Amino acid sequence: MVRKKAVVDAGIAAASIDRGVLLVLTGNGKGKSSSAFGMVARMLGHGLKPAVAQFIKGRSDTGEEAFFRKAGVPWLVLGEGFTWETQNLARDIETAQRGWTQVQAFLRDPAISLVVLDELTYPLKYGWLDLATVLDDLEARPPMQHVVITGRGAPAELCDVADTVSELADLKHAYRAGVRAQKGLDL
Amino acid sequence: MVRKKAVVDAGIAAASIDRGVLLVLTGNGKGKSSSAFGMVARMLGHGLKPAVAQFIKGRSDTGEEAFFRKAGVPWLVLGEGFTWETQNLARDIETAQRGWTQVQAFLRDPAISLVVLDELTYPLKYGWLDLATVLDDLEARPPMQHVVITGRGAPAELCDVADTVSELADLKHAYRAGVRAQKGLDL
Repeated sequence: MVRKKAVVDAGIAAASIDRGVLLVLTGNGKGKSSSAFGMVARMLGHGLKPAVAQFIKGRSDTGEEAFFRKAGVPWLVLGEGFTWETQNLARDIETAQRGWTQVQAFLRDPAISLVVLDELTYPLKYGWLDLATVLDDLEARPPMQHVVITGRGAPAELCDVADTVSELADLKHAYRAGVRAQKGLDL
Repeated sequence: MVRKKAVVDAGIAAASIDRGVLLVLTGNGKGKSSSAFGMVARMLGHGLKPAVAQFIKGRSDTGEEAFFRKAGVPWLVLGEGFTWETQNLARDIETAQRGWTQVQAFLRDPAISLVVLDELTYPLKYGWLDLATVLDDLEARPPMQHVVITGRGAPAELCDVADTVSELADLKHAYRAGVRAQKGLDL
């Protein structure tokens, strides 16, 4: 344990850079969006300013939204649900692109310490948003601004430019035992 | 997409049970504890009552603690760091066991909707806590109470009794590029 402490301490000493991190949370397991919202809480705890944009989810009655809106977090709900919900591709594209214009304002504001782009992977996967534009806007953001992107199937190009990528594997899910989404846990 | 909607809707209709879920977030990737704290925020958004116990982390200046304490969340910091920090095994065992007694009070209180046991896997792995006792206490909790357990290397016996298990793989981490833990993102 004495030796282990020396090794760990040396690793911590070597990491000394402060800068904005691009974090991608992908995979099929539960916990991606929740994780982003935990970081929103952490930011607020340090007196820093987070902002959130939720793609896809059209609903406006989630616990996270109710809670963080009250705490003064700028919060955009940009989606109208998945295409198989709206059954209208042209509208989905228009909704996503109008949404991205609002996100660009976050990504140009150095007063915002963290931008959460919840479920951004879906409009990218379906081609509703142009990946090259999104990557350019991420790259041009203020140097100290953190960005967290969630959703299944993150594109390889996005993971390439990310600083940190976690892939959540779904080893087990209560849903498959018939338990529906639970208030406070899943929504 | 019409067909896809039918399949998804059928799956959602089949899941109809409401009950307390035991969720385990494990693996080496970033985002496990953050995810638990996101669910704390969701709970508060629905007017429900979460409680948190953090094992191992001895520090008391994290963003999550500052933020959620102010929101009235019962919050225990039970650890004094990893053993290679304290260099005192007997004290680590005593700290963990004294902490578990406090957690038992949460696990017997039906007014608490969510109990977060952050980094519980470490005292289990090091044998500071008895796994059988922990599993018994989890099983005996109020039927509608959710529990989220985080930490690397969750024991197989714990995953066996869990309802949902996500394993976070560390595909990439900013730390390895020299970026140290960032306020609001990592702590």
